[in-house]
Amino acid sequence: MEKPLSKISYRNLRRIDGDLVNIDCADGRIAAIVPAGSAAASGAEMIDAKGQLLLPALVESHVHLDKTLWGQPYRANSAGPMLKDYIDNERRVLRKVKAPIAVRSAALLEHCIARGSLYIRCHIDVAPDIGLSHVEGMLALREKYRDLVDMQFVAFPQTGMLIQPGTVELMDKALAMGVETVGGLDPAGIDRDPIAHLTAIFDLAEKHGKGLDIHLHDRGELGLWQIERIADFTQARGLKEKVIISHAYCLGMFPHARIEKLGQRLADLGISLMTSAPADTHVPPVAFLKSIGVNICCGSDGIRDAWSPFGNGDMLERAWLLAFRFDWSKEEELQSALDSATGAAAKAIGLAQYGLKAGHAADFIYLPVEALGDALGQRPHNRNVVRHGRLVAQDGALLKSRLG
Amino acid sequence: MEKPLSKISYRNLRRIDGDLVNIDCADGRIAAIVPAGSAAASGAEMIDAKGQLLLPALVESHVHLDKTLWGQPYRANSAGPMLKDYIDNERRVLRKVKAPIAVRSAALLEHCIARGSLYIRCHIDVAPDIGLSHVEGMLALREKYRDLVDMQFVAFPQTGMLIQPGTVELMDKALAMGVETVGGLDPAGIDRDPIAHLTAIFDLAEKHGKGLDIHLHDRGELGLWQIERIADFTQARGLKEKVIISHAYCLGMFPHARIEKLGQRLADLGISLMTSAPADTHVPPVAFLKSIGVNICCGSDGIRDAWSPFGNGDMLERAWLLAFRFDWSKEEELQSALDSATGAAAKAIGLAQYGLKAGHAADFIYLPVEALGDALGQRPHNRNVVRHGRLVAQDGALLKSRLG
Repeated sequence: MEKPLSKISYRNLRRIDGDLVNIDCADGRIAAIVPAGSAAASGAEMIDAKGQLLLPALVESHVHLDKTLWGQPYRANSAGPMLKDYIDNERRVLRKVKAPIAVRSAALLEHCIARGSLYIRCHIDVAPDIGLSHVEGMLALREKYRDLVDMQFVAFPQTGMLIQPGTVELMDKALAMGVETVGGLDPAGIDRDPIAHLTAIFDLAEKHGKGLDIHLHDRGELGLWQIERIADFTQARGLKEKVIISHAYCLGMFPHARIEKLGQRLADLGISLMTSAPADTHVPPVAFLKSIGVNICCGSDGIRDAWSPFGNGDMLERAWLLAFRFDWSKEEELQSALDSATGAAAKAIGLAQYGLKAGHAADFIYLPVEALGDALGQRPHNRNVVRHGRLVAQDGALLKSRLG
Repeated sequence: MEKPLSKISYRNLRRIDGDLVNIDCADGRIAAIVPAGSAAASGAEMIDAKGQLLLPALVESHVHLDKTLWGQPYRANSAGPMLKDYIDNERRVLRKVKAPIAVRSAALLEHCIARGSLYIRCHIDVAPDIGLSHVEGMLALREKYRDLVDMQFVAFPQTGMLIQPGTVELMDKALAMGVETVGGLDPAGIDRDPIAHLTAIFDLAEKHGKGLDIHLHDRGELGLWQIERIADFTQARGLKEKVIISHAYCLGMFPHARIEKLGQRLADLGISLMTSAPADTHVPPVAFLKSIGVNICCGSDGIRDAWSPFGNGDMLERAWLLAFRFDWSKEEELQSALDSATGAAAKAIGLAQYGLKAGHAADFIYLPVEALGDALGQRPHNRNVVRHGRLVAQDGALLKSRLG
């Protein structure tokens, strides 16, 4: 249970426009944001941020916590060269690693929180060989950490869906158990029957009244064609603002003119895009697509798992990687990069009351830099994280006392 | 002056192969690397690394310390859209910023050392409007920090050379003052007379008995053609192993077959390549070029300056960015990434006795991770840095007492 919350006033926080403010919190919500120097409510506990930079709580919109080997002994990447080899290798590795999700994923989750992510959408593998074991583990994890972080789940058919009989039924059960979102995976490239794949996942969404989050790695025209079909299904099923397409490399492979109409359709249907901002492949042209109204956010994807030793769950690092990907350096570009891990991500995953505003949950971070450019460029680890008005991480370390 | 050095034994360092070793230092050099558990020399001071990961000192092979605004109030990037605008903007900004190199560059240099870079090649702007002021500032800086770091300098014609009369003469003076290397900049794209440009800089190199380090941003066939000409000059002037081409984006714009012969020529002439591993443009195909014998290293390029707020001088981050650029994740790939900021960089800038070997300078770092994959993926800031046998940075903070 969350402890009773008193009034807390965070003093001398520097907004990214440079102004110093205080944030007065009451009952876990922002009561007021006022100029520094204003008096606090009587009886409020005072915490002086000493001019550190204030940012809204970070939003992790795409991560695979159930796959991580965080906190486990290091394992060299032993996968073969093809996507299929990586999928098979992951299964082998996770069978060998004895630590359950309650240990592996919890260790990473705590790290993500300490880096400032207080809203996390996590894909969870669902497949015949593992059944619902990952779902069960993650549901328990969410319950344990509910005072510290808001988590959303996606039932993700990592090994394929139609090509793995029984997977749709497992996803159906996962959704009944409390998973919020229907996943999908390369309807053409992996499942080899795109319309049947989309029919199945949109049927699940309709049955459970949920949204969708579809991994799409398929490239070139094959990718674009599937985005058009996802738009068709979204429109036909009335799921405006409820669908994310994750990765969508294909959008980065064409001139703007070729994708403009499709982009406008995504904007009209409120279909968001998620990118991990990879450097070795194409990335949707973020500035152009945002200029025509498409909502785009960033996510970590896998973190220190059987796929790669890399990733660390730092959403400031991911936002910087987006800027790095496009060689952004101007202030409005830096704000767009930050947006990919804050406002745009919140919109993509459907957070109703997100951001630094009176009445919203008092969820924010502050860190020892002067400006947004330094927050992204330097990404100091010694961050302070406030969740529902309470400091839950200080100088980069999670305050374990806040847990349950 | 450097303080007298006693015997120091660093205990329980974990090599990247997993073995635990001790490094016994005497008079600033590595006396022996022995299995952990071995007895130390009598009278040696003992420092227990407690199993932290051992890496050789990092090598920064390309940085512009004289341009940095490190430690100065944050400035939003105010440059216009073109390369020329960025060059002009930098001049405006640096005229406005009052802090001299002794302050700005020193602050960044100390940060780089604390992150583990003990060998640094720095390009220094030389141009009619600033004359040799940056050279003078950097020479003084090198003298002040000589106990902590080995620095090499390149006389760099940032605003163009032949198109800026007087620049060659200033470079000539800079080389006479102690700058080690002749710079160059887009002989075709900026200076518009490639053969005259190369003739001038190779003449300077010959006159002073120095090597060269040439910025080449020119793309496509124009870039390849200039690399061929640089190879011609290197061969004709007998400067094998003495030339670096920095950036060389053009090599990443063609199929391997098209650049293989040129790559073999670079290998034969010992011409190294330097990349900052950018994600928004082409990068030389590092794995392929290394496979045919080309030496390739990484550098930070500009750091928090008028060009961009980004960059932080962390060469582990740069090595990781190289891996990220090519989606490397296997152990041999991680070692290649590390090599770009250690061995390959040392070779590129001509360090004679580099690396963890008895008889070499006792320059190394250790940090709280278990394996190379974690060093690159997590890049903890709380590193320990040993220079000439002495701890000069501890838990990420420079020990100021070591300075002079």
